[in-house]
Amino acid sequence: MATICMTSKDKSAQKRRKAELENLREELLEAQFELRKTNKGPILVLITGNDFAGKAEVIYTFYEWLDPRFLHTRAFGLPQGIERRMPWLWRYWRTLPPTGELAFYLGSWYHQPLMRLSRGQISPTTFKRQMQEVTAFEQLLIDEGATLIKLWLQLSDSDTRKRADPALNQTVAMREWGDFSAADYEKVRSGAQYMEELTSTTEAPWIRVPSQDPQERDLRIGQILLQAIRQQLTSQPSQHPAYGWTASQNERLAALDYTLKQDKDHYQQQLSTLQQRLRQLVQHPKFARRSLLLVFEGTDAAGKGGTIRRITQCLDPRTLRVHGTRAPTEEERRLPYLWRFWRRIPAPGNVVVFDRSYYGRVLVERVEGFCTEPQWQRAYREINDFERQLADKGTLVIKFWLAITQDEQLQRFQAREGSPLKRYKLTDEDWRNRKQWPAYVQAINDMIEHTSTQLAPWHLIPAEDKRYARIQALNIVCDQLEAALK
Amino acid sequence: MATICMTSKDKSAQKRRKAELENLREELLEAQFELRKTNKGPILVLITGNDFAGKAEVIYTFYEWLDPRFLHTRAFGLPQGIERRMPWLWRYWRTLPPTGELAFYLGSWYHQPLMRLSRGQISPTTFKRQMQEVTAFEQLLIDEGATLIKLWLQLSDSDTRKRADPALNQTVAMREWGDFSAADYEKVRSGAQYMEELTSTTEAPWIRVPSQDPQERDLRIGQILLQAIRQQLTSQPSQHPAYGWTASQNERLAALDYTLKQDKDHYQQQLSTLQQRLRQLVQHPKFARRSLLLVFEGTDAAGKGGTIRRITQCLDPRTLRVHGTRAPTEEERRLPYLWRFWRRIPAPGNVVVFDRSYYGRVLVERVEGFCTEPQWQRAYREINDFERQLADKGTLVIKFWLAITQDEQLQRFQAREGSPLKRYKLTDEDWRNRKQWPAYVQAINDMIEHTSTQLAPWHLIPAEDKRYARIQALNIVCDQLEAALK
Repeated sequence: MATICMTSKDKSAQKRRKAELENLREELLEAQFELRKTNKGPILVLITGNDFAGKAEVIYTFYEWLDPRFLHTRAFGLPQGIERRMPWLWRYWRTLPPTGELAFYLGSWYHQPLMRLSRGQISPTTFKRQMQEVTAFEQLLIDEGATLIKLWLQLSDSDTRKRADPALNQTVAMREWGDFSAADYEKVRSGAQYMEELTSTTEAPWIRVPSQDPQERDLRIGQILLQAIRQQLTSQPSQHPAYGWTASQNERLAALDYTLKQDKDHYQQQLSTLQQRLRQLVQHPKFARRSLLLVFEGTDAAGKGGTIRRITQCLDPRTLRVHGTRAPTEEERRLPYLWRFWRRIPAPGNVVVFDRSYYGRVLVERVEGFCTEPQWQRAYREINDFERQLADKGTLVIKFWLAITQDEQLQRFQAREGSPLKRYKLTDEDWRNRKQWPAYVQAINDMIEHTSTQLAPWHLIPAEDKRYARIQALNIVCDQLEAALK
Repeated sequence: MATICMTSKDKSAQKRRKAELENLREELLEAQFELRKTNKGPILVLITGNDFAGKAEVIYTFYEWLDPRFLHTRAFGLPQGIERRMPWLWRYWRTLPPTGELAFYLGSWYHQPLMRLSRGQISPTTFKRQMQEVTAFEQLLIDEGATLIKLWLQLSDSDTRKRADPALNQTVAMREWGDFSAADYEKVRSGAQYMEELTSTTEAPWIRVPSQDPQERDLRIGQILLQAIRQQLTSQPSQHPAYGWTASQNERLAALDYTLKQDKDHYQQQLSTLQQRLRQLVQHPKFARRSLLLVFEGTDAAGKGGTIRRITQCLDPRTLRVHGTRAPTEEERRLPYLWRFWRRIPAPGNVVVFDRSYYGRVLVERVEGFCTEPQWQRAYREINDFERQLADKGTLVIKFWLAITQDEQLQRFQAREGSPLKRYKLTDEDWRNRKQWPAYVQAINDMIEHTSTQLAPWHLIPAEDKRYARIQALNIVCDQLEAALK
């Protein structure tokens, strides 16, 4: 009879390990509870590495150890359907977890690029560019308060061979790499090395986790997680000023000619000619692979709504969305400010109009102090980066600032007050904003200077005469779209 | 020189009309404001009918007349991509507007069926069945507090011909019917007649709107809208008891054998055999066109979480979602209770697990009085209807009730209290629920009797022995899935 003989030394080691594990689980639960209570975070745990190291299995362990009601798992395979026609980070953006919670990522933003690099489907240069995009994305998440834990589960070659043996018929919940040969694995390894060099930052370094022994592996990850949550709990929002940011010296708004007017007699004719033209452009076969994002910002009462209506009037409602941007909801406040706009970017063949937009970050949020100075100073770069990703995938981004003078605004406010049909358009906030006029002027000039990129420059339109503004905006949309479809 | 001569009579008629319009707009704005304040509704305005009657144009009018921040437009074309692989009402469910707001529908749930009927792509019998589904859907929305306005814009044949003349080059924002011949139009007309017969109910009748004169048309629709909002504002939630509902006399829970146990020695072996089997079933090529919805309900502390983990452990996280159902959020409370579950139904090839579910309506919401008696009494039918729609499209729905005795529950509660690792699982609510034991027993028996359909019967599992429950559940999932893939 074969008996497994346990020495008292083994036994006491096992006992110690069990106690250690229980202690860790207790502390993790406590930490998770605190995270939720303080609404910090979120914590993103990226689980990558060898297919036989138990990537999915790690997650199932933590679903047992932690309170599963506040855990998320995001597991991505090959991009499918619409995902392939949107910027590649889009599917990660729209599924970000809210503050206070914890998400595990399988097949994160690292997997597809690394897979394609290993298979020779993309060049190292393309891979490098994608990794730069990833770094910017992660930096934004961290700046917005998230913690990233990037784990690479390691397994020796001999262990991999053993576990990959189909005769042993071992359940591996998820295989990402397919049936790779040893040579392929070598390529993955060297790619991973390169990836690590490119994307290990102080705030989100890669951590290698030996995964021979599942218990040791989970214990180690548990410790890493605990440390990260605790750091998150005591962390203060970053106060680094945005590197190299300087206020604009330009006075673009003051330089506008506010006397420009549209000839009344030809207005209707011009309007319908332009609408007809826009309609035809959007029906152009080439537009099916492109999309259009119109951003409308402007002084209160400058006539954004009326201008937008003149543009949308001629478009097919099935491929059009107009989003009025209001103060973020409770849910939206638990996610990075760009999240709600990423969710609403146009699909190919579609037109999206933002009536106010993500530029709120550097306008109202800046002026009213709803975000910190480092936050709005960073935002210019973040926004440029966002628009570049859209443009890269074929979206034409056109941005308008409708400007009126202080006198004109006062008259319009008063007219609104006096009209039962327009009263709802005027709020206390409008009067408050008006008092902040000089602060807004600076914010607007900064915004124009820092976000007028080659891909998406600002179009400033004096809107003292509403008809003029409408015709101008339609003209610009038509011209730009025509050029883009050439 | 041609001069248009206006008589003083014309002028005064025009003046009256203008005053009438202004008055209407004022009242509409006021009504919209009240709707928002009282958080009633929503109001759904379905705009259907002749392509040249100005369906989209009506909407643009109301974007001018009303406060556009609280308006939605839902415009649907042919179902695309994933929409074609889900129950056909899914895309309408997931985009329902919240209470307090107003949504216009173009290409609503009527358009595709009517189009296909007119083109001879579906039989009148299929059309009739779809209209029955539509009626049930609308009835549910109305019962949940929505108001439906179903408009059919009419235009005479001669006017249609005139407006359809391409030489006149008129901007029509949206054409739904394509280039129909007169004969086709005749078919649409007779189809529409049939549709009207099938779906005009007292609460949501079809209203025909003459649309020769756009101004008259919009005025008329404005009046209909105003009346509907005002009715909505004064309406009380329906107190009709569900027709023919009777309490269950069965005592299914009491009839269970709570002494059933799983042999400890073979548990691990059986578990991994079953997990392996499930894994292979889900990888079966036929499963790519099917999907699996597992619903877990049970007594508090019956071991739902542990059972779910044993099932999910062997599945690929990329095609798996586990949703823990908590109390609805603020946003979710503004939509029908089934909305959040419709959003989470599995796509083909996927597995979704609900840890607690829409059955909360007839369990906790019923027992705690979170919904009215008519609401939970109606819910049995609504839920059966929901599950039937899933099954029709290939989803296998398997429902489990894990049952333990009161004594066992008390022991588990006490064990949870005593363990730092399990304490989080026990809340005051659990103790409260325990006091309501007899009420829950009745609710559970009712639920089992009224929602054990042929397509999706309840599986009651005595879970006094956790291992027994896990093996049973896995066994049932495997057997059912195997049968479904045959």
